[in-house]
Amino acid sequence: MIPQDTIVALATPSGAGAIAIIRLSGKDAIAIAAEVFQSVSGKDITKQKTHTIHLGHIVENGKVYDQVLLSIFKGPNSYTGENVIEISCHGSTFIQQQIIQLLLRKGAKMAQAGEFTLRAFLNGKLDLSQAEAVADLIASDNEASHQIAMQQMRGGFSNEITKLREELLNFASLIELELDFAEEDVEFADRTQFHELLERIEFVLKRLIDSFAVGNVIKNGIPVAIVGEPNVGKSTLLNALLNEERAIVSDIAGTTRDTIEDELVINGIGFRFIDTAGIRETKDVVESIGIQKTFEKIEQAQVVIYLFESSKFQVSGSRYITEIEKIKNKYPLKQLIVVVNKIDLISEVEVNQIRKQLQELNVKLATISAKEKSGIDTLKEELLSLINTGALRNNETIVTNTRHYDSLLKALEEIQKVKWGLDSGLSSDLMAIDIRSALHYFGEITGEVTNDELLGNIFANFCIGK
Amino acid sequence: MIPQDTIVALATPSGAGAIAIIRLSGKDAIAIAAEVFQSVSGKDITKQKTHTIHLGHIVENGKVYDQVLLSIFKGPNSYTGENVIEISCHGSTFIQQQIIQLLLRKGAKMAQAGEFTLRAFLNGKLDLSQAEAVADLIASDNEASHQIAMQQMRGGFSNEITKLREELLNFASLIELELDFAEEDVEFADRTQFHELLERIEFVLKRLIDSFAVGNVIKNGIPVAIVGEPNVGKSTLLNALLNEERAIVSDIAGTTRDTIEDELVINGIGFRFIDTAGIRETKDVVESIGIQKTFEKIEQAQVVIYLFESSKFQVSGSRYITEIEKIKNKYPLKQLIVVVNKIDLISEVEVNQIRKQLQELNVKLATISAKEKSGIDTLKEELLSLINTGALRNNETIVTNTRHYDSLLKALEEIQKVKWGLDSGLSSDLMAIDIRSALHYFGEITGEVTNDELLGNIFANFCIGK
Repeated sequence: MIPQDTIVALATPSGAGAIAIIRLSGKDAIAIAAEVFQSVSGKDITKQKTHTIHLGHIVENGKVYDQVLLSIFKGPNSYTGENVIEISCHGSTFIQQQIIQLLLRKGAKMAQAGEFTLRAFLNGKLDLSQAEAVADLIASDNEASHQIAMQQMRGGFSNEITKLREELLNFASLIELELDFAEEDVEFADRTQFHELLERIEFVLKRLIDSFAVGNVIKNGIPVAIVGEPNVGKSTLLNALLNEERAIVSDIAGTTRDTIEDELVINGIGFRFIDTAGIRETKDVVESIGIQKTFEKIEQAQVVIYLFESSKFQVSGSRYITEIEKIKNKYPLKQLIVVVNKIDLISEVEVNQIRKQLQELNVKLATISAKEKSGIDTLKEELLSLINTGALRNNETIVTNTRHYDSLLKALEEIQKVKWGLDSGLSSDLMAIDIRSALHYFGEITGEVTNDELLGNIFANFCIGK
Repeated sequence: MIPQDTIVALATPSGAGAIAIIRLSGKDAIAIAAEVFQSVSGKDITKQKTHTIHLGHIVENGKVYDQVLLSIFKGPNSYTGENVIEISCHGSTFIQQQIIQLLLRKGAKMAQAGEFTLRAFLNGKLDLSQAEAVADLIASDNEASHQIAMQQMRGGFSNEITKLREELLNFASLIELELDFAEEDVEFADRTQFHELLERIEFVLKRLIDSFAVGNVIKNGIPVAIVGEPNVGKSTLLNALLNEERAIVSDIAGTTRDTIEDELVINGIGFRFIDTAGIRETKDVVESIGIQKTFEKIEQAQVVIYLFESSKFQVSGSRYITEIEKIKNKYPLKQLIVVVNKIDLISEVEVNQIRKQLQELNVKLATISAKEKSGIDTLKEELLSLINTGALRNNETIVTNTRHYDSLLKALEEIQKVKWGLDSGLSSDLMAIDIRSALHYFGEITGEVTNDELLGNIFANFCIGK
């Protein structure tokens, strides 16, 4: 199962930069590197300590490819658990290619996507959910998803699952032992304790399963649709919401290229504004609320912001109220926030009148001036209040991975079967089958139970070089 | 002059990848890193040896930002000559930003473009031409430009200049000494030896100045225009020329994104096909050779390929010959290659007849079948033969930098003045002025003579993080 060959790949993003890192991992990593590396001080790198760095040149037949720093990590004290060499070279694409080609000629083979992390898993450096967290961590683009991936990578989730699995395994052994003594009608497993354990497992599983609702939102962001008449200030609102974040990002030169436009992060939770480019251009009047486009937008969203202009309420207020009710009735499960814009154009008395009339609708309400940037913070708080981030604040384990979610659901189903069997005096041999099933699903999460297809699917989502 | 602050920047290309490197340099680099880094084994990084790597976490107030590898380089044994820390973190843009922001909060300041290399120069780790070679190396996208940049970075060019400068400086001192004893009419500087030195300097300067023609071509590629009637096989020819190279590049997954389309590299020399997209689309018949577009294309080019179809020679041959002569007369300094395509459609006897008629024109000639890919290698050799790559093959110093070229020209002018002065018995004090001038221009190349504006211009062209 453990691979014998040595793999190579570029570990830094492709393209030109100041430096690039080429990573080698495998039994022969150090030997292959030694063939092409000449230390400036004449050192033999095969005789150097682990976790040391050496200045030298990449050379083949007297031709110097680059001046590089070479880092040595000796297995098992490396990311993959194998011997690892990292070559820090000048960041030209040409140099990267030349050095990788040279290493391929010397016997390394090109790494597959995620193959370094796959090897870390196969060598027991990470369990499967930790390996998956590495990809999540690299993909994380906000505080919350980053925090969850970090926790998962550091083993928080695995520990919880592994502990439950061990306790269950213990009982499974006792029950299976009973089968060997079936004729004697003995009970090695204390049924009361077992029942208590099943309840505890059920409780934890349900909490983890419930956390997926938040976890999924955190991982993928919350889709928000802004609807309203033209010129009501949708783009101004969007800019007011986004501005502050943009300023922070653009402070750091060289790191802004991947900024996702039109994603707003509030307290680490990402809000994605659906098709905002479209919103800015199209003239989809809510008056013609039958229009397919507005509905489609709302259907993709989890949160709907209904925006109108305060000064038009006197004339069009009753139409707005009808429209709001239509949205509420058609999409009862979507979160709706009614936003009154341009409140700087009317008096406070008038604002209060609008507020009063809308209160009867029983919707969340925010009064703002997008232009003057007043009320924006309150609106952000309203957006945030829609998401139950309690679990996040309490540093609880949150499930973000669909694969884990599926396994947890299946494990819960089996646990409930076992519990039912226990309560209804099912025979030990039949209960044992359900317990094995539950153990199987626990094992799927951490990778004690696995197969090539599953591993293939998981690591195919990684980038090359990780 | 030597900066006291500690700078930070992302050193790897921006965007997400498996890993990213954040680099700190300055007096407080290790102290700043120690504030945010917690080693997994509890080590104090301020007490670790240079060139060692440590696994740990970036932590602030108990919040874990990432698991990282931290490399320590203690000045002067580092790239910049200062204390340097490199943090190898997970490659998410979010994590990069978070860690850089944290380091800024701890007292580092954002590095300017090229500031790490500027510091290496100020600390005497590199001279100015070596520093410039670092940027060239990162920008190099073919074998020849890479080789020249490597040679320059390793000091080949500087050594040559510095050696001449020292010899000249030696004579300058002697001649200036004579000025102190002007009344006594002594000659400390042996005039014959001095003349011999000036001739040698002149010879080297001329060689270096001449090499710029090749150097410039190597650095920027050679512009080639392909002209001819429509459907004569221009795009097939281009594909036949390019195909092989493309296949090599696409062998290496993950490194192909920056491949420049329509640049052909033969033996490390880049040939750029001008506006080939246009060539593929436009119907610029050479018959209407007056057409502005064809001329414009030829004017931008250094090499012109005139392409026609073998089977049409019998009917249109005399027109082709007229057109070829027009191009030769209008652009006598451009290299012209006449290419006869589709020779698979006619007999060898016919091919020889065409060859014979064209020989009288005294142009380079290639007969090919782009479709069958025959004759392509010979055409490549013809292209390559146009460039005097002798200097490159002989591993001689080649000047590629316009700034160096300008300084060399000015130095040559001064040296020729000195020589003239020596031959015509000019007084030592006047000669001394010209020698000082020549020394000044030598010093400009290696950076012994410099100023903030010059440094600003040079390092502004670097990327941030280098």
